[in-house]
Amino acid sequence: MTRIGILGSEGRMGRAIAAAIAESDASHAGGVDASGDAMTLAERCDVLVDFTAPAALSANLDAAEAKGCAIVIGTTGLSADDHARIDAAAKRIAVLQTGNTSLGVVMLCALVEKAAAALGKDWDVEIAEMHHRMKVDAPSGTALMLGEAAAKGHGDSLDAVRVSGRDGHTGARETGTIGFSALRGGTVAGDHMVVFAGEGERIELTHRAEDRAIFARGAVRAALWLHDRVPGRYTMNQVLGM
Amino acid sequence: MTRIGILGSEGRMGRAIAAAIAESDASHAGGVDASGDAMTLAERCDVLVDFTAPAALSANLDAAEAKGCAIVIGTTGLSADDHARIDAAAKRIAVLQTGNTSLGVVMLCALVEKAAAALGKDWDVEIAEMHHRMKVDAPSGTALMLGEAAAKGHGDSLDAVRVSGRDGHTGARETGTIGFSALRGGTVAGDHMVVFAGEGERIELTHRAEDRAIFARGAVRAALWLHDRVPGRYTMNQVLGM
Amino acid sequence: MTRIGILGSEGRMGRAIAAAIAESDASHAGGVDASGDAMTLAERCDVLVDFTAPAALSANLDAAEAKGCAIVIGTTGLSADDHARIDAAAKRIAVLQTGNTSLGVVMLCALVEKAAAALGKDWDVEIAEMHHRMKVDAPSGTALMLGEAAAKGHGDSLDAVRVSGRDGHTGARETGTIGFSALRGGTVAGDHMVVFAGEGERIELTHRAEDRAIFARGAVRAALWLHDRVPGRYTMNQVLGM
Amino acid sequence: MTRIGILGSEGRMGRAIAAAIAESDASHAGGVDASGDAMTLAERCDVLVDFTAPAALSANLDAAEAKGCAIVIGTTGLSADDHARIDAAAKRIAVLQTGNTSLGVVMLCALVEKAAAALGKDWDVEIAEMHHRMKVDAPSGTALMLGEAAAKGHGDSLDAVRVSGRDGHTGARETGTIGFSALRGGTVAGDHMVVFAGEGERIELTHRAEDRAIFARGAVRAALWLHDRVPGRYTMNQVLGM
Repeated sequence: MTRIGILGSEGRMGRAIAAAIAESDASHAGGVDASGDAMTLAERCDVLVDFTAPAALSANLDAAEAKGCAIVIGTTGLSADDHARIDAAAKRIAVLQTGNTSLGVVMLCALVEKAAAALGKDWDVEIAEMHHRMKVDAPSGTALMLGEAAAKGHGDSLDAVRVSGRDGHTGARETGTIGFSALRGGTVAGDHMVVFAGEGERIELTHRAEDRAIFARGAVRAALWLHDRVPGRYTMNQVLGM
Repeated sequence: MTRIGILGSEGRMGRAIAAAIAESDASHAGGVDASGDAMTLAERCDVLVDFTAPAALSANLDAAEAKGCAIVIGTTGLSADDHARIDAAAKRIAVLQTGNTSLGVVMLCALVEKAAAALGKDWDVEIAEMHHRMKVDAPSGTALMLGEAAAKGHGDSLDAVRVSGRDGHTGARETGTIGFSALRGGTVAGDHMVVFAGEGERIELTHRAEDRAIFARGAVRAALWLHDRVPGRYTMNQVLGM
Repeated sequence: MTRIGILGSEGRMGRAIAAAIAESDASHAGGVDASGDAMTLAERCDVLVDFTAPAALSANLDAAEAKGCAIVIGTTGLSADDHARIDAAAKRIAVLQTGNTSLGVVMLCALVEKAAAALGKDWDVEIAEMHHRMKVDAPSGTALMLGEAAAKGHGDSLDAVRVSGRDGHTGARETGTIGFSALRGGTVAGDHMVVFAGEGERIELTHRAEDRAIFARGAVRAALWLHDRVPGRYTMNQVLGM
Repeated sequence: MTRIGILGSEGRMGRAIAAAIAESDASHAGGVDASGDAMTLAERCDVLVDFTAPAALSANLDAAEAKGCAIVIGTTGLSADDHARIDAAAKRIAVLQTGNTSLGVVMLCALVEKAAAALGKDWDVEIAEMHHRMKVDAPSGTALMLGEAAAKGHGDSLDAVRVSGRDGHTGARETGTIGFSALRGGTVAGDHMVVFAGEGERIELTHRAEDRAIFARGAVRAALWLHDRVPGRYTMNQVLGM
């Protein structure tokens, strides 16, 4: 049985991961809070799951390397230096770093890239998302990930083709642009839809999150998958076998 | 059998109305183009349908009054003076003026107003629409009609609560605002969705137009309904029995 | 402050109602389980909320009448005798009985009836719902409520026009029928969509439940509304002001 | 410029293909009706497009082989013998045979297979479609194609896992089954949605056809792609570069 340890166990995500372990085939090997002693925890784990902060990353990787643990990194806001540190660790242990641990979102990104590449720019791409009324920014990070997947499929950089917040006299749509719309209201956990609109037909690729537990569940699935892998840097796409 | 005459018969809408009459219980009594002789046409009609321009309105109403025809007015861009002229005519003949002749859109506006009034401002209202890539403005006129219906249900003026083109750091959603999102792409004739987002539940009220013939079909249904009404000014809501 | 007492406080619904009271303007006056002493509880309440079983109904109404409490009844499976007992109680106290306490579902039923009445049978009505993989029957009770609302709008009895589980060689659709489709999968709390499909256009009226707390929240809102009403039998439509 | 000839030019599909050629980069080299002389037509074409009947297939392939034309075959109801005949022709000319020429539908099938393979049977698959009120069978052929794609992704045969027309006491959903729902109404050209429902999240992959011209447009795109290919048997997936 895979023994999972939680770095950042007192955070909202840490607690959700503990719950997700309880409903999985893994065993919960304990946790430490963001400033806790990763080394002791690593000793009794097969895989660490890290949802802390960039400042804790280096010590967490030290512990994983020292004890030969695999590690899933869901911490956000990583710098180029942090990524270099991860690459270095990946020579000795299995590391999976990701900006989004929802299996459905990762799947959708892969489908969007594939569709954009195959359909080409004759099919206009639009991305709409809806989140709860407390969200303070737009578009969502996940919408931008989906936009990057579409732009990559088109062979473009998202920055060069992104159109957000269409309003007023906009003129006809420019070929190759990717439009973003943000709806806000109620308690919606997060819905995303990518539309490919061609001549006389449309494809809509949608993800609906019922609650935020999906991110914890995906992190646990990634940890199970990562256990016993040879050293290297892995992605969520590989967890999904893509 | 109701005899319908078309004012503006050479326009795109005029031709669509001729087609809609052909598939209806009415008979086509002929048409004149935007600068044509309304008086001669009125003589052999029960109802005139007017999709011309504000400049032609007065002569068209003169003809309807002189010959005792009812008249459906779908001309857009009417001024306060035009509306006063219509009110004057409505003392002698049956007149129905409307900004949108789609039965589905009229129905949706009525449902939106009712829902907004009953649910109140605890349910956030968002309006999203999608149209073809050639459309040059956002939001659509129909989206604004739906927004006005929601604002009316809330006891508000739309101008005071409208939020369009959300983008960047927006802060949390303000209670009572009505958000608009515009998607553009492909050849979509026109989809509109009004979302009411409450605590833990959502209502979505959607209209999908397959093509623009629906506007002509609704105009013909309005004409059939208007035939033999007593003088007065009528609305599409009444055609739907609401 | 309205004091609410819970009959059936140990059930899943009872606990959800306690949570909903905690986030409301009401105060929680206590609860008793399904076989508990309603009389003592009624003494310190303004409104009772009853999610027990038909067998407990009569004693619960006795207590409410004796102490002059209003009562919200969400118990399902009531017989004609039970309804007669409720009518009798409603001469002395305010009673609201309902098969569904979700405000959104009640709202949707009202909109569906209105739309069906106004659009008539030229617009085909189809009802699709999706629920989690553990649900053992189809269509859902809520889908049938929506179907009844549509049938009522058409002036029909649902039993006479209902078509479920379309499969194989069905022939063309018969005018006036109401079709039901049931999707099952995952952990979906409950989505319902009523489609009105006309010539060249469609209206879709959709409700999405994020979780089952909405039923408790609606029951508490009904209790707050019912407090201080004159004796009589009330409905959820009235809570929504319709 | 690619010269396209139409076999079955007097049929509904043949006329739609002529219109699609007119709006494309190809030139229209003429057509013959289902019983016409394919040989003369083939002489002045680069690619033939065949939407006739199985009885005409062999003569059509003879003509294509004799004149060295490529051929797109959209004829339905082909037997095993017909397929063997196509395989034989494909040794000398480029042949593309398909049951569906909509690019969007072909794309969606590819995405569904990929998603089913990656997500596995923990994500329940449901397929819902809506078509106009005159359609006499259910589920649609396209829905079954999508079901086959999902079953293939799961490593199953559709016949073994298909569940259609869920109604009454169904019991809990069985893992690995694929459910079908058919909605009928109005004039809907054809909408299809494949749902993947997991724990706490859902993916919905949807195709919406605005009208039936998309099938003609896809056939012309296939013809353009097929021109100058080396002999062999090709698929629509290859046209999309997948």
